[in-house]
Amino acid sequence: MPVVGMAGGGQLARMTQQAAIALGVSLRVLAGSAGDSAARVVADVRVGDDSSLDDLRAFAKGCDVVTFDHEHVPGAHIRDLEESGIPCRPGSAALLHAQDKLVMRERLSAIGAPCPAYAHVPDRAPMAFLEVFARDHGWPLVLKATRGGYDGKGVWVLDALDRDAWDLVSRLVGEGVDLMVEEHVPFRRELAALVARSPHGQGAAYPIVETVQENGICVEVIAPAPGLDGDRAAEAQRLALDIADRLGVTGLLAVELFETEDGLLVNELAMRPHNSGHWTIEGARTSQFEQHLRAVLDLPLGSTDPAAPYTVMANVLGGDAPAIYHRYLHVMAHDPGVKVHFYGKDVRPGRKIGHVTVLGSDLDDLRARARHAADFLRRGSAMDEKEDA
Amino acid sequence: MPVVGMAGGGQLARMTQQAAIALGVSLRVLAGSAGDSAARVVADVRVGDDSSLDDLRAFAKGCDVVTFDHEHVPGAHIRDLEESGIPCRPGSAALLHAQDKLVMRERLSAIGAPCPAYAHVPDRAPMAFLEVFARDHGWPLVLKATRGGYDGKGVWVLDALDRDAWDLVSRLVGEGVDLMVEEHVPFRRELAALVARSPHGQGAAYPIVETVQENGICVEVIAPAPGLDGDRAAEAQRLALDIADRLGVTGLLAVELFETEDGLLVNELAMRPHNSGHWTIEGARTSQFEQHLRAVLDLPLGSTDPAAPYTVMANVLGGDAPAIYHRYLHVMAHDPGVKVHFYGKDVRPGRKIGHVTVLGSDLDDLRARARHAADFLRRGSAMDEKEDA
Repeated sequence: MPVVGMAGGGQLARMTQQAAIALGVSLRVLAGSAGDSAARVVADVRVGDDSSLDDLRAFAKGCDVVTFDHEHVPGAHIRDLEESGIPCRPGSAALLHAQDKLVMRERLSAIGAPCPAYAHVPDRAPMAFLEVFARDHGWPLVLKATRGGYDGKGVWVLDALDRDAWDLVSRLVGEGVDLMVEEHVPFRRELAALVARSPHGQGAAYPIVETVQENGICVEVIAPAPGLDGDRAAEAQRLALDIADRLGVTGLLAVELFETEDGLLVNELAMRPHNSGHWTIEGARTSQFEQHLRAVLDLPLGSTDPAAPYTVMANVLGGDAPAIYHRYLHVMAHDPGVKVHFYGKDVRPGRKIGHVTVLGSDLDDLRARARHAADFLRRGSAMDEKEDA
Repeated sequence: MPVVGMAGGGQLARMTQQAAIALGVSLRVLAGSAGDSAARVVADVRVGDDSSLDDLRAFAKGCDVVTFDHEHVPGAHIRDLEESGIPCRPGSAALLHAQDKLVMRERLSAIGAPCPAYAHVPDRAPMAFLEVFARDHGWPLVLKATRGGYDGKGVWVLDALDRDAWDLVSRLVGEGVDLMVEEHVPFRRELAALVARSPHGQGAAYPIVETVQENGICVEVIAPAPGLDGDRAAEAQRLALDIADRLGVTGLLAVELFETEDGLLVNELAMRPHNSGHWTIEGARTSQFEQHLRAVLDLPLGSTDPAAPYTVMANVLGGDAPAIYHRYLHVMAHDPGVKVHFYGKDVRPGRKIGHVTVLGSDLDDLRARARHAADFLRRGSAMDEKEDA
């Protein structure tokens, strides 16, 4: 059976292990430490630094294919692995578009994918540049580091070029952070399109979901996006399949979208299992984790059919209490149908430490149940908080 | 998070790992070798002999609870662990009924559970005893080793007291095998009732399934059992819950049943995840593996609601080819909805090496799809067989 190497030991690698177990595929993980989320549940763990070429080479030796649980492995290192004959999926050329937001915007614009207005921010006189951009596209502005951001990190909304904005931009430019600016899109809501593409070129698209963010972090996903027009949903699926094809993505591609009055705009790309696809573990015939493995192994892709009319996923964020296991008692007794996923990560306030999923047909009921379970796992009851303190 | 120790490194422990990953529970496995099915996919593996008290003690140290992937850990050793303060679930007193078929029959008869006629076969003049038993209950007879059997091993059907029967019984008695005899039940079909019971006494019952055996090995499970009368199904669930309660089972209890013209009879008991429950991974809201973990951890039990009108599971038995991975191509391309589970075991003819599951509403279609996938994984095409040879 083949060995799939995944660089990164986070929860995406952890949940990929569940799918690897079923397929009989060996998952090898390159984790920063033996206590990482995935390292705790995988037999073949290599502890190392996935930004070190030596560590990557040692890890990749004996892997049939290498893939990634995040975007932070340097492209040059991935190219080195590719040149030594190790298939990397996605490959370095495709992955660049998930690593560099400016490259992504330029490429998507070139292939005609709808994007917000954007521009590279020059190091010299950045404030004057931003002022001109705002004159053309209005306030607020969205300032982004072209590389390295996630979960709202590396993204700033500027309401005006006030003192705070000056300080921020000066600091970032001083630190050598490469910046871009985008118009602030007045979106109705955020959607996500998740597709898989295999090296053979087979594609498969999941139902389009609605994602709900708070403070730049996804807190809830509703599958399928309620009330989404069928044509619009098909358009979003086609758009994501087209991007995957044009960029040569192998594995999963998640396309975060803004739904506006005038149509869809691409927000971000990710080329790996994605938070917006966690609902598929129970909610689709093939989980995104199994689909990613099938795609990177060039196996035929699995059915993306939904298992229920609606599936709701809510992220569990860390609260103030370091331990949440005893909260299972209430959550499971209260709702025997809720599926709890805990990532084995140390609890820190605001950190994604797990998620819950519920399936059924009454959307309001499902949303209330998912929120209750996620909130309780985060905060406990008032009495519980006292106990934890 | 608690540590659950599972003695035995087979596919049941392997699939329990998938559920442990979701719950964030640490699964420790005591495996006979590092190449065992579960040992390949668990971070915390102890290699040892689960019939050795020393190995069991070392393994159990630091576990919050110990449970089992098979029935072969000696009861005296489990009692030793219990006396040293380590919760074992099921406990030795309950587990004895799944380890010794004679004890099981005596106890079930005592609590009024319907069983076939049975008797202990004496070492002295066993043939005369069998002849009398046959006079009372008719031919054929079912001869069983009271301990150690599985998958049809340790069970023999005697059509007459001919030379072969004499040879068999003489050999077994000579080897010190403790024997019992049962009437051969003219059953319509075989059913299985799967329930969970927690130390608190909470119970949960899955839908009753039909199991199809060939040569003493389960080849197919249909959930729920087609055409089963609702009262009969409820009776089977109540019977299993009642047995779990009366025997003090903690964890899962699988009750294999004969459906006869006159009603239900108990065939066998197992106190662990069971082949007849593999369909629950995709086919029920809570998989039997998660349910077992919840039960042994005394967490509230999960919903046993089915995820589809019908789920069909077919076992994949080893064929002549040592490698089956390339057969995934056909199976997955042919049927994107089939779920493949491969146990990472070496392929040997007739050995259970995996299973496939399909869900939906057209039972004939589901059965055909499951059979096709399982048969192809076993045998491949005619051309494929040549390649393998």
